[in-house]
Amino acid sequence: MLTPAAISRVVGAALEEDAPWGDITSGVLLPPDATATADLVAREAGVFSGGEVFTAAFTLTDPAIRVDVHVGDGDEFAADDVLATVSGNARGILTAERIALNFTQRMSGIATVTAAYVSATEGTSARIADTRKTTPGLRAFERHAVVSGGGHNHRHSLSDAVMAKDNHLAVLQRSGRDLASVLREALAQLPHTTHVVVEVDRLDQIDAVIAGGADTVLLDNFTPDELRAGVALIDGRAQVEASGGVDLDTVAAIAATGVDVISVGALTHSARALDLGLDVRID
Amino acid sequence: MLTPAAISRVVGAALEEDAPWGDITSGVLLPPDATATADLVAREAGVFSGGEVFTAAFTLTDPAIRVDVHVGDGDEFAADDVLATVSGNARGILTAERIALNFTQRMSGIATVTAAYVSATEGTSARIADTRKTTPGLRAFERHAVVSGGGHNHRHSLSDAVMAKDNHLAVLQRSGRDLASVLREALAQLPHTTHVVVEVDRLDQIDAVIAGGADTVLLDNFTPDELRAGVALIDGRAQVEASGGVDLDTVAAIAATGVDVISVGALTHSARALDLGLDVRID
Amino acid sequence: MLTPAAISRVVGAALEEDAPWGDITSGVLLPPDATATADLVAREAGVFSGGEVFTAAFTLTDPAIRVDVHVGDGDEFAADDVLATVSGNARGILTAERIALNFTQRMSGIATVTAAYVSATEGTSARIADTRKTTPGLRAFERHAVVSGGGHNHRHSLSDAVMAKDNHLAVLQRSGRDLASVLREALAQLPHTTHVVVEVDRLDQIDAVIAGGADTVLLDNFTPDELRAGVALIDGRAQVEASGGVDLDTVAAIAATGVDVISVGALTHSARALDLGLDVRID
Amino acid sequence: MLTPAAISRVVGAALEEDAPWGDITSGVLLPPDATATADLVAREAGVFSGGEVFTAAFTLTDPAIRVDVHVGDGDEFAADDVLATVSGNARGILTAERIALNFTQRMSGIATVTAAYVSATEGTSARIADTRKTTPGLRAFERHAVVSGGGHNHRHSLSDAVMAKDNHLAVLQRSGRDLASVLREALAQLPHTTHVVVEVDRLDQIDAVIAGGADTVLLDNFTPDELRAGVALIDGRAQVEASGGVDLDTVAAIAATGVDVISVGALTHSARALDLGLDVRID
Amino acid sequence: MLTPAAISRVVGAALEEDAPWGDITSGVLLPPDATATADLVAREAGVFSGGEVFTAAFTLTDPAIRVDVHVGDGDEFAADDVLATVSGNARGILTAERIALNFTQRMSGIATVTAAYVSATEGTSARIADTRKTTPGLRAFERHAVVSGGGHNHRHSLSDAVMAKDNHLAVLQRSGRDLASVLREALAQLPHTTHVVVEVDRLDQIDAVIAGGADTVLLDNFTPDELRAGVALIDGRAQVEASGGVDLDTVAAIAATGVDVISVGALTHSARALDLGLDVRID
Amino acid sequence: MLTPAAISRVVGAALEEDAPWGDITSGVLLPPDATATADLVAREAGVFSGGEVFTAAFTLTDPAIRVDVHVGDGDEFAADDVLATVSGNARGILTAERIALNFTQRMSGIATVTAAYVSATEGTSARIADTRKTTPGLRAFERHAVVSGGGHNHRHSLSDAVMAKDNHLAVLQRSGRDLASVLREALAQLPHTTHVVVEVDRLDQIDAVIAGGADTVLLDNFTPDELRAGVALIDGRAQVEASGGVDLDTVAAIAATGVDVISVGALTHSARALDLGLDVRID
Repeated sequence: MLTPAAISRVVGAALEEDAPWGDITSGVLLPPDATATADLVAREAGVFSGGEVFTAAFTLTDPAIRVDVHVGDGDEFAADDVLATVSGNARGILTAERIALNFTQRMSGIATVTAAYVSATEGTSARIADTRKTTPGLRAFERHAVVSGGGHNHRHSLSDAVMAKDNHLAVLQRSGRDLASVLREALAQLPHTTHVVVEVDRLDQIDAVIAGGADTVLLDNFTPDELRAGVALIDGRAQVEASGGVDLDTVAAIAATGVDVISVGALTHSARALDLGLDVRID
Repeated sequence: MLTPAAISRVVGAALEEDAPWGDITSGVLLPPDATATADLVAREAGVFSGGEVFTAAFTLTDPAIRVDVHVGDGDEFAADDVLATVSGNARGILTAERIALNFTQRMSGIATVTAAYVSATEGTSARIADTRKTTPGLRAFERHAVVSGGGHNHRHSLSDAVMAKDNHLAVLQRSGRDLASVLREALAQLPHTTHVVVEVDRLDQIDAVIAGGADTVLLDNFTPDELRAGVALIDGRAQVEASGGVDLDTVAAIAATGVDVISVGALTHSARALDLGLDVRID
Repeated sequence: MLTPAAISRVVGAALEEDAPWGDITSGVLLPPDATATADLVAREAGVFSGGEVFTAAFTLTDPAIRVDVHVGDGDEFAADDVLATVSGNARGILTAERIALNFTQRMSGIATVTAAYVSATEGTSARIADTRKTTPGLRAFERHAVVSGGGHNHRHSLSDAVMAKDNHLAVLQRSGRDLASVLREALAQLPHTTHVVVEVDRLDQIDAVIAGGADTVLLDNFTPDELRAGVALIDGRAQVEASGGVDLDTVAAIAATGVDVISVGALTHSARALDLGLDVRID
Repeated sequence: MLTPAAISRVVGAALEEDAPWGDITSGVLLPPDATATADLVAREAGVFSGGEVFTAAFTLTDPAIRVDVHVGDGDEFAADDVLATVSGNARGILTAERIALNFTQRMSGIATVTAAYVSATEGTSARIADTRKTTPGLRAFERHAVVSGGGHNHRHSLSDAVMAKDNHLAVLQRSGRDLASVLREALAQLPHTTHVVVEVDRLDQIDAVIAGGADTVLLDNFTPDELRAGVALIDGRAQVEASGGVDLDTVAAIAATGVDVISVGALTHSARALDLGLDVRID
Repeated sequence: MLTPAAISRVVGAALEEDAPWGDITSGVLLPPDATATADLVAREAGVFSGGEVFTAAFTLTDPAIRVDVHVGDGDEFAADDVLATVSGNARGILTAERIALNFTQRMSGIATVTAAYVSATEGTSARIADTRKTTPGLRAFERHAVVSGGGHNHRHSLSDAVMAKDNHLAVLQRSGRDLASVLREALAQLPHTTHVVVEVDRLDQIDAVIAGGADTVLLDNFTPDELRAGVALIDGRAQVEASGGVDLDTVAAIAATGVDVISVGALTHSARALDLGLDVRID
Repeated sequence: MLTPAAISRVVGAALEEDAPWGDITSGVLLPPDATATADLVAREAGVFSGGEVFTAAFTLTDPAIRVDVHVGDGDEFAADDVLATVSGNARGILTAERIALNFTQRMSGIATVTAAYVSATEGTSARIADTRKTTPGLRAFERHAVVSGGGHNHRHSLSDAVMAKDNHLAVLQRSGRDLASVLREALAQLPHTTHVVVEVDRLDQIDAVIAGGADTVLLDNFTPDELRAGVALIDGRAQVEASGGVDLDTVAAIAATGVDVISVGALTHSARALDLGLDVRID
């Protein structure tokens, strides 16, 4: 859910960061009325994301630049495919080029790696979800890219779902009262629309946290066998999320255990920029 | 040159992005006066960057939290080293944890990969430089991390140095006049403090661009042999920069050609987050 | 969950709105070094909310002003009670007075009316919840006040829970397929942590929306008898929320029907400012 | 004087507050190209205010949405009147609906209550004026609504007119010199365009404050008889403003005393949201 | 009335404008722990203004820098006087130096020229006032400097006093009704605290504009004899302001005509920066 | 390189500073649908700068106002020339008038004085450059005006070129090692695109600073004879910049010494507003 307001604000700030006093190269080397045409070309195969963002980089620089994006967010493409075409004032196109690419390469990189995880879990009921390990300031953009790749978003922020971890449970249990009761009591303060995820390290914690009000039980760093046991024990009373030790080699086995959600920090925290280039021809 | 003002603005925005209505988990599960102690622990070896940023994530959340960073930016560390210790209000520490890590993991990841490039070129006169392929909004942070890793920064933005590419040269040559003259004429409009980089694709362009006023000649996508020929031809009349096709396998050979600068987009556009964790113990 | 960052930003903006060029009255009529003491006094009984906000109005004007708040958010007070005491530079206290009161009167007004609804439903299992009918720009403040009054917050925004209404259901049903299926299919795109509220106008819609994935069924404008029938039909398969036609005269009967949540727009959209005054004595 | 810049800034911020990550309900339940038509319908009679603000909520969400407002600010309407019609993209209309209503209900509520005060004083020379008891961040909007209701604005802020109260006068009199002299001396520092209001509690203060330079004498918490005496005593040498104890029951008697201005905090600090609804029909 | 909030915002922005990526000179040439002492020295005589602004430039750069300002705003000084002393981290002092001077030189320049106008009119009852011909973004700073020089401020903005000019009067008179009536009718819409200035070009307009409600009559581009006639004709019924053709050669004669206010655009629109320097000694 | 984003931000802020609650004079004295035509007329001869800024003041106030600028930035004009014509809504034109003039008068004043310096040095190879003595917040505007006048910009900020002064050199020499070595060592930390200016007070410092890496040697407060000696000594090994004691009387002699650059603080720190007026005719 990448809003137009967010795109304008973030892309506009990126353009100012990259040219606080203008683009002096184009200013001295190109005639002010020169026009250009440019193709966004894939240098490698992947899944596209960021069409509106790519467009905004140019139109925020010069509203008269025309951008035609030939693929939709989520579309697969092959190396050498032309993904978009830009035409208009040459100075404006060259000024915006790097920022347009910085966003699109990153977003398409995230979409592509997400698609690989989704593909590896095809045929299971597990969904691939992102985490809060996103780039500061770009969460909405990176989460949009995860969706483009067929993944799902997790809670947006610390404000919109609870995730209780070992430290929290340890504090609750200091009272000596049973965990389910104190957990339920604490959660009663929340809005009735708040989803509660509780992370457990051991199978024997599961019954208590479900009784305490967990909507999702997060099994952290469990082996596939342990996950399978967890799924059986939870038995539909809550959603089951797996995390920890997830990579493209292990994700299929994890998905096969019957978990509902696999959250993967690597979708965003280490995504490689996809190799996309802008081939510019000044008219 | 990461200014305190930039740190406050960017880290503050990241904290708001991650908790627009506060951290509801800590709010309902932890007593308001609980305190905690937390260690920033390296899960793998690397080069550190981001001590002031790590600190700011906590102190902007709660000025009373105390942060001691045990390593300097640029210091190497081993797996299991404790890099920093945080103590104070438990809610505040847990609220800031993810943002503190998101910045520090990214910055240390960039410092670590930069250090690998620097190490691979040791003994040569080539410096490793970053590019404008940085994350939108985080350029100052990522460039600080490059310096932590022993690398150097390139021009900060489109506003503070010229980089003329093939398209620019092609436009200049339309006049039919010789390139050196038209280039020199165009560059005379610039501030006298502006550095001029001109990118060439072929050796036979070099004399003209130096005569035209290039302070640095950028040899793009040259083989090592071509680079060596370029260095010989330029012969100290300008700095020599190499770019294109640079990775950890090729960088040593490129550096050995005698170029002054090797610019590497991969330092920032695809840096992996280093695995650092916060081990929290609620008192 | 009113964050310190939100308080600084919103209260700071209110102070600038009220004194863009300073407080000219104090500037010409009071010596710069005059000091004052001021009591926040209740002119009527109520429930307090906004202690941190009251404090911020003064300390953002002059960090040396000292504010002691004698009551906690959520505390009841009687007419003539002294709720807080402020001391320091007289110009600063008079400059901040109106803004401090504007926030505290509004927040305490909301807390007080919320407490009346909560009290009217005591002994039932129904909770009183707010809505999105909040003052633009002040949602976090007004929702904090609802919690001070013993109420609960509803979803924070359009981004963090689904609320499907008649129009949405009508569109889904155009396909001719059964509502439960199309609803479930649509909702599968959401994050797994997203809570789904579905509003129904008739009892016969309930089974389909629960089958479609509703976590909460919102019975809008039902009579108490209809609500009771709804609660029986839902029978614990989802939470039951009532809205529409709720006021202090009707809320007890609504709560007695067994619904879980009663959402009340009037908590925030028409709350009366509570009569609190600042009795200032210039030393 | 509600400027277009203020409308864009405040309404834009309200939309972001209400949908920081977009409207997920419309996003999953409505086709992206669905269109809708919506009528703004009065559920009760009143005086309208906020046509430009209502429009902005939709056009800032989607510039292609068309809004026709059928009434002018200040127009009276009856229950069931259609006040405006909105048409365009269904997602955009539903996303903006609540914010459009939040502003328009509040502004029309203020206009309506103001009109009641104005009507109660018809035939007298007294004008109804607002105060600084406005909602933080919304002063320009609420004051526009007061004007829509036939009222007048008071000083905009602490920076644009003096209002001297008892504390100020007490400080001035500490010198032992006569009040008129010290007041006149202090006020001489002001811009010559600054209007001076001085509040008095007793009739015997009036001569001195007029001699001291008051342009308006504010008679605070005077009975109608006392007001009449004050008007006689002031006798055209200054404007006469009454405040304190003003409500719809007392205002006519106050106006009949001959005062020029009656300032009423209740116009804005406790205005009820008028019941306006948006009847949406998805095409 | 220069507020602390305005100082922080404007000086902070100036510092960022001047060092978006930090001060690279100090960064590479000075040890991080070097300290310095610096004197603000007058290179010529003048009137000081801007002590708080000078201080803020340093403390916003580094809160540990200590600034002692030895003169008050409005104090006269001679060439070679030491006006302030700064001590602390050398990098911070050198980074802030230029911005501190840019503000202080400009403000003291305005104070000094204002004082010259005030001095030239000594012994008359005319006050010297500024205009809206201020530097965009710096109005509060420049008007503070006018007050430091003994001048007075005019209306702050288009929002806080009326100034009716020939165009406005011409439009009003199109109706064919008498000017006093239509003017009075129009002005009745204003807040009762709004001051009304009406500009006239001819003596025969004066009676009508006073009857229409002018609080101040502005005699624009009148000769001294015409001004004297205007003062006589107005005879205390309104304040008299003169503008146009005012410079240091003419102002005494204008003041001698008995006008109350002389507004002078040159105080701010063309003020020369006073020559102040910072003598830095690195410890 | 004045970017559209900078123009919108700075001019928009100036308009808000000048009319935070709108233009009350036009609001009460002009019919909402009145239209006007206005000419920007030169009251004296000069060089124009600020066409885009002048335009923005009107179109940001009302996008329907049409502005035709008849001269280009950098064009000379005579007294009484009509420089631009504005037509559209009368209220909007009068509201924006002062801000449009404040910018254009200042920018054209700077362009005009710059042109005088450029003209005085014609026939020499010296260029006239500005300094960092610009108005806080308006650097990009003032530097654009310098270019309009035929001058050149110096480094934009502390972040984009080094300028080492006596204090810096003194610190470097404390080590007792030779200046050239320690300077070179320090400068090696900089980006390879950073230009280095070193200021010297004596001829005998020149060889060392060139050996240390100075790209430009700044001869500060040298007499023409000393400058000539400096130029001879430097002999093309670096650019030569002169500063200090430069005014319209001395600049020709300085330029005749063969220096490359003359930097002149007076271009911006004390520029007189050029006398331009807006002749408005309400239709």
